[in-house]
Amino acid sequence: MTTPSPLAVLFPAMPPLDGVRIGVATAGYKAWVRADVTIVAFAPGTTVAGVTTRSRCPSPEVEWCRAALPYGTARALVVNAGNSNAFTGMTGRDASRAQVGRTAVLLGCSEHEVFVASTGVIGVPLPADKATEGVAAAHAALGSASFKDAANAIGTTDTFAKGAIATAFIGANKVTVCGIIKGSGMIAPDMATMLGFVFTDAAIAAPVLQRLLSAAAEQTFNAITVDSDTSTSDTILTFATGAAGNMVVADETDPGFDALAAALTDVCRQLAHLVVRDGEGATKFVTVTVDGAEDNRAAKVIALSIANSPLVKTAIAGGDANWGRVVMAVGKAGEAADRDRLDISFGPTRVASNGAVVDGYDEAPVARHLAGSEIEIGIDLHIGSGHARIWTCDLTHGYISINADYRS
Amino acid sequence: MTTPSPLAVLFPAMPPLDGVRIGVATAGYKAWVRADVTIVAFAPGTTVAGVTTRSRCPSPEVEWCRAALPYGTARALVVNAGNSNAFTGMTGRDASRAQVGRTAVLLGCSEHEVFVASTGVIGVPLPADKATEGVAAAHAALGSASFKDAANAIGTTDTFAKGAIATAFIGANKVTVCGIIKGSGMIAPDMATMLGFVFTDAAIAAPVLQRLLSAAAEQTFNAITVDSDTSTSDTILTFATGAAGNMVVADETDPGFDALAAALTDVCRQLAHLVVRDGEGATKFVTVTVDGAEDNRAAKVIALSIANSPLVKTAIAGGDANWGRVVMAVGKAGEAADRDRLDISFGPTRVASNGAVVDGYDEAPVARHLAGSEIEIGIDLHIGSGHARIWTCDLTHGYISINADYRS
Repeated sequence: MTTPSPLAVLFPAMPPLDGVRIGVATAGYKAWVRADVTIVAFAPGTTVAGVTTRSRCPSPEVEWCRAALPYGTARALVVNAGNSNAFTGMTGRDASRAQVGRTAVLLGCSEHEVFVASTGVIGVPLPADKATEGVAAAHAALGSASFKDAANAIGTTDTFAKGAIATAFIGANKVTVCGIIKGSGMIAPDMATMLGFVFTDAAIAAPVLQRLLSAAAEQTFNAITVDSDTSTSDTILTFATGAAGNMVVADETDPGFDALAAALTDVCRQLAHLVVRDGEGATKFVTVTVDGAEDNRAAKVIALSIANSPLVKTAIAGGDANWGRVVMAVGKAGEAADRDRLDISFGPTRVASNGAVVDGYDEAPVARHLAGSEIEIGIDLHIGSGHARIWTCDLTHGYISINADYRS
Repeated sequence: MTTPSPLAVLFPAMPPLDGVRIGVATAGYKAWVRADVTIVAFAPGTTVAGVTTRSRCPSPEVEWCRAALPYGTARALVVNAGNSNAFTGMTGRDASRAQVGRTAVLLGCSEHEVFVASTGVIGVPLPADKATEGVAAAHAALGSASFKDAANAIGTTDTFAKGAIATAFIGANKVTVCGIIKGSGMIAPDMATMLGFVFTDAAIAAPVLQRLLSAAAEQTFNAITVDSDTSTSDTILTFATGAAGNMVVADETDPGFDALAAALTDVCRQLAHLVVRDGEGATKFVTVTVDGAEDNRAAKVIALSIANSPLVKTAIAGGDANWGRVVMAVGKAGEAADRDRLDISFGPTRVASNGAVVDGYDEAPVARHLAGSEIEIGIDLHIGSGHARIWTCDLTHGYISINADYRS
């Protein structure tokens, strides 16, 4: 990995989880010496849920996960880094299928219990020999790797390892929810963003886990954007081993559901924020909050319009309290807005009210806020009660430098 | 103006037009010595048509033009540069109204025959004294300025003066269509982009002129994007003095309508391309053509998804034949697409076909094409017969440098 993002945070203490064993190895998808293939093996009875990209050009790995998810059980997760295998035709599909097959043989499970994800360059078929030999090497190393090792091994342009952990009680049983994620560019919402994997030792039925994950993703992974570009490979999978011994959560009214939902959503939000903190070229973490929109949907459209605007993002990069660009982004969103009732704040300071700059506007406290690395933009439309919150980063020379020659 | 864009082209020979007189002056909206207020006076009987931004937060000037357009006649156009007067509440509205009033008195016409447009910083009210004194000074200079002088005086972050000219015959009468435009950032389609003014000596009824302009704008101004950000002030106005003496074009079936439509569309396309060529930080002019989409609307959505993608635009900036990012942008557009039938070309070279890289792909000719300054990206979805073409530019360090401290 390169120099860590200035917004990087340390990987948390994340002990091994009952029912989960991890191995990593070097398949050599690129000319590097780092680990680039990861296997996570699960105890029998582990349930699974997932959300995947809404791209119309998904990778074969995404298609495989979609097909396997309805079975509801998982024995393995395999992750390849450095090659996304997207847009590689039958060659890529066959290579992915071979890797799944090899994994199922190694673990003595059904193929539909093997979940797989790949990110990296688009358009170069996954080399089948490296993929099958790599997963065998990772399998041989099962139990020797930590969550942090896995977080490092699944990364591509990431500049730091990203993980999050939370706990909850289901009855008397303490359960742990932890996760790892990779991603830093080609990040946009309206999907499950990038590759993220959440693990829990809670016992929970697959359909309930799926509803829980979908709801959490909407408020977390689907509420971040780095560059408005949606990947072909985005996948979030959640695995529940049941090793904590709690009474199975089989319905949303069962004891512990709310606590588990809170812990899972907490981990998902932490992971989503970590992706923004590793946004390509990011120097500032930005929270955009919209209130008073026609409804929650409209609020989210407006918040995303602000968070994706190159002019807003470059203004933040420059520490410029350019609220005019925020007005522009509200206006272009196409949702109901009354220019003459619009309020805008940067941090705790109201800069514009009722459609014009506030009387006696003092830019000094706003400039101080924008000089920091945690920026808050608040909008109140005073039209309805719609609310949304989106997290993003600034747009800097770093983004251009990284992406003007990523592939070569 | 700063160093001209590397894609700049020379201002064309554009002689005075019968029925049109131009004056420019320095109102001093910023601390500069350049002309920043322009008046264009029209002979009695001049008809007018216009299209304006679809922003929900338009400037008072945009609202004024919308209210005046239905009257169909124009005696003056006033343009302020350096202050957009958008989001300035009643103070800004009153200042703009005062400028309109002063102009009407100076020319002895109705206020609804005065059209006005302003661009520049958002959120700072137009100073009423400078606006009224400035337009009086410009009026005193009427007849002394050329179209090129006006093109320079309406610019803000523009790096070169932009104009276009075409001619047509209506019966035996040769008519001229010419135009000037400003704009280089906050440029996105789905509206009439930036400030553009088209003049003709043809005689044409206002409703016919309006239909003609709306149709032309859809294929030209609404088919360009620099940064996906839509301005609060975008306005295109077209004035027809009738001085060419042709029989009035009062219906779409009248003689000369088609020729005039072709000339007007030609001028609009030239002007739209000039804005892209002055895109902030642009080093490459990019044409994105989508064929085989479900319908024309879907084709345009997909073409815009490609043209607005930061990852595609940075790849082009880096001369990187990264067709994987084009696949990504097709996928995220949300329109019908079949990954396994997708064809992608750069310039004359097919790089991907039927959902995978072509056999024996040779990157050399593609790299040569991308090293140039005129880039073509072609997509064929092989689903339907929908077609669209969008023009854009690359995304470079220059864009970041310009926008990370534009206001200050």
